[in-house]
Amino acid sequence: MEFKISKELIQELELLIQNKNDKQLEVLLNDMHHADIAEILDELDFNEATYIFKVLDSDKTAEILLELEDDLRENILSRLSAKEIAEELDELETNDAADIIGELSQDLKAEVISELQDVEHAKDIVDLLRYDEETAGGIMHKELVKVNENWNVLTCVKEMRMQAENISRVHSIYVVDDEDRLKGRLSLKDLLTTSSRTAISDVYIRKLNSVKVDTEDVEVARIMQKYDLEAIPVVDELGRLVGRITIDDILDVIKEEADQDYQLAAGISQDVEADDSILEHTKARLPWLVLALLGGFVSVRVLGLFEGAMEEHGKLFFFTPLIAAMAGNVGVQSSAIIVQGLANNTLSGSLFNRLVKEVSLSLLNGVILAIILFLGSHFLLNVEFIIGIIVTIALISVIIIASLIGTFIPLLLDKFGIDPALATGPFITTSNDICGILIYFSIAKLILGF
Amino acid sequence: MEFKISKELIQELELLIQNKNDKQLEVLLNDMHHADIAEILDELDFNEATYIFKVLDSDKTAEILLELEDDLRENILSRLSAKEIAEELDELETNDAADIIGELSQDLKAEVISELQDVEHAKDIVDLLRYDEETAGGIMHKELVKVNENWNVLTCVKEMRMQAENISRVHSIYVVDDEDRLKGRLSLKDLLTTSSRTAISDVYIRKLNSVKVDTEDVEVARIMQKYDLEAIPVVDELGRLVGRITIDDILDVIKEEADQDYQLAAGISQDVEADDSILEHTKARLPWLVLALLGGFVSVRVLGLFEGAMEEHGKLFFFTPLIAAMAGNVGVQSSAIIVQGLANNTLSGSLFNRLVKEVSLSLLNGVILAIILFLGSHFLLNVEFIIGIIVTIALISVIIIASLIGTFIPLLLDKFGIDPALATGPFITTSNDICGILIYFSIAKLILGF
Repeated sequence: MEFKISKELIQELELLIQNKNDKQLEVLLNDMHHADIAEILDELDFNEATYIFKVLDSDKTAEILLELEDDLRENILSRLSAKEIAEELDELETNDAADIIGELSQDLKAEVISELQDVEHAKDIVDLLRYDEETAGGIMHKELVKVNENWNVLTCVKEMRMQAENISRVHSIYVVDDEDRLKGRLSLKDLLTTSSRTAISDVYIRKLNSVKVDTEDVEVARIMQKYDLEAIPVVDELGRLVGRITIDDILDVIKEEADQDYQLAAGISQDVEADDSILEHTKARLPWLVLALLGGFVSVRVLGLFEGAMEEHGKLFFFTPLIAAMAGNVGVQSSAIIVQGLANNTLSGSLFNRLVKEVSLSLLNGVILAIILFLGSHFLLNVEFIIGIIVTIALISVIIIASLIGTFIPLLLDKFGIDPALATGPFITTSNDICGILIYFSIAKLILGF
Repeated sequence: MEFKISKELIQELELLIQNKNDKQLEVLLNDMHHADIAEILDELDFNEATYIFKVLDSDKTAEILLELEDDLRENILSRLSAKEIAEELDELETNDAADIIGELSQDLKAEVISELQDVEHAKDIVDLLRYDEETAGGIMHKELVKVNENWNVLTCVKEMRMQAENISRVHSIYVVDDEDRLKGRLSLKDLLTTSSRTAISDVYIRKLNSVKVDTEDVEVARIMQKYDLEAIPVVDELGRLVGRITIDDILDVIKEEADQDYQLAAGISQDVEADDSILEHTKARLPWLVLALLGGFVSVRVLGLFEGAMEEHGKLFFFTPLIAAMAGNVGVQSSAIIVQGLANNTLSGSLFNRLVKEVSLSLLNGVILAIILFLGSHFLLNVEFIIGIIVTIALISVIIIASLIGTFIPLLLDKFGIDPALATGPFITTSNDICGILIYFSIAKLILGF
């Protein structure tokens, strides 16, 4: 059932391209799903990909365009005229077309829009361009089926057939009044099972969820997931139906959000992919590394404070990376749990209870780890008894403090409206490194008195 | 439009429960969405939540049950008899019912099943219990609309109306032969626009994606996303239609997968939530901390190798946490990009090219960071010139090696069929810490000759 690209297929295609055997190329590719063709084009070089792209029909290439990797799409679009791009967009759903136009340069944008053939479609696309990408308006599409509350079922079915032609999935039929204000919905199923003379106003469901054009996309995702919706209508400030968001749009939002959180946790601050340019990667990664480096400066200064210990108790310095690493790891664990709890809305109970729980948990972990460390320091690392005692006490203290910091910081960020996912990366590890080292040497100084 | 729990509402409910005012409770809650009620119950204590649960009708409570947090659901189920649980399950879709039964003890399971009233429904549920949770069989449900290829449109619509009664979303109508083997599909829209005497075999679409019962759930998610499907039929070994998976089931798979990757990156190895027990958290977190601790032992030994430097060049030891932290951070960044690329299937090109790119990237980052470090060591940290030179050279080398390790390890794990997400947590930071320190002191030794 599943499609897999083979080396043989790629070679065959390359040969056909060399021989400019367009007919055979069409035969080979026409039966394939556009997502599969996109996968193939991503494997070929730019020239070959563009060649195939120009051989295929625009109803197919339009869909392929959407599935391509960013740089290949950019490259192919740069080799098309405004008119050719417009032809592709005429085949696409409004929000997909708007997304592609959004990627074009300002000049080209205007030119492409003026070349769009279907005026209604063009109007819808231009309308969508107005909204911020990360709002309901930015992810909705204009394709939907709507009927007037004053019609009867028969008119409704007729109208619906016409409207539904351009729509791949109907989901719900929205009911509006004469002013286009959203009043309720009808299900296809209801329509199938109701007599044709019934008035729409007698059968439609008046209760339905909707979102405003300026609702944040993640909020829309939350609502649709919570209420298990497959589509949600979008209304403007006056309550007029302006678009619809379907669950596959939301899937993208959820994946992007998860990817971003994952990257933030790893200290990558923009949404970059493996195949983006070195410059983009540097922009996303360097700031966090600079932060970590500056944190490193502080740790050097902190260690400098305890220089006095070096002569007599030099071995203490062997344990700094161990203590710092444990502090960092514990902090990241605690903050990850909080960040995820905040994202999934599963945190309940008071801050105090949460901190108490985190302390108990880290006490339990800390004691187990401390026993291993104590035994290890004695039998594996052969350090003096007193140093073993010091690192053991330090480890427990550091684990408790690190978990408190890890719990507290994301909650604090969230309170101030900052994305708490920022906290789980280098930010937590760096601050916990410093705290950990400070605690460790303070305990050592207290016990050894250097 | 959006529901928010207020303190006043909670207080009102608590008062009504105290006064055992069941009528008023019903009035207050009956109009609410089950997802909202579940949110409210999560805020109340167990006794209050159970009280409300028993007041409401089973068609409402069944849906609420699905939305509750795990521990509250467990608690409520433990206070219900087998018969009462069966009543709830009779109201649910097959896969939801099977999920809940899966959480029960072996004895209770059998008892609950024997109490199910709807025999067909019970059969379907028992059938679903056979499949592994992480396969298509484990996430599919039995609710679907199917018609025989030998029928005409009229029979089909009649049959469909009957079947569709229990199904919230029809999506596609599947066409099977006399042996129940999946042959193709019909869309509701087609049915609406075709004359009623047409034979089904003349109108149905023969090409459709399907998955086998034993296909992995993440693979199903990948296929449905790639081909932009809202539902996919599931067939058994003989090609017989046994179930259907809809996009909302897949949403859960995707979210779980993302949550797991995120947690793995933070060194948490099981799927735990903030509100799980301390024991569960310890089980998920402790193994990684032990690993990090053992890595710490190695770093202590490595530092011990360079004890000779302590007397004359003690300041070198002040920089170990800085070098270790940079190595860890760079490694995590590189591995996160690879892990995500593997998960999203966006890695293209050869391993060699990827490593070359990663080296160029880290060279760029490394040089910038090294300049900052060199200036900082001179002006902020006041260390000798030669130490500044050593840490600067060490930093560049460490960054390059760390990024190579971060790139290579997840690719290697993936090659051997191990989840590469394992690599981005403590595993990478720990191994990079050790390598970083080793490289740093080796360079110092080479230059200073201690």
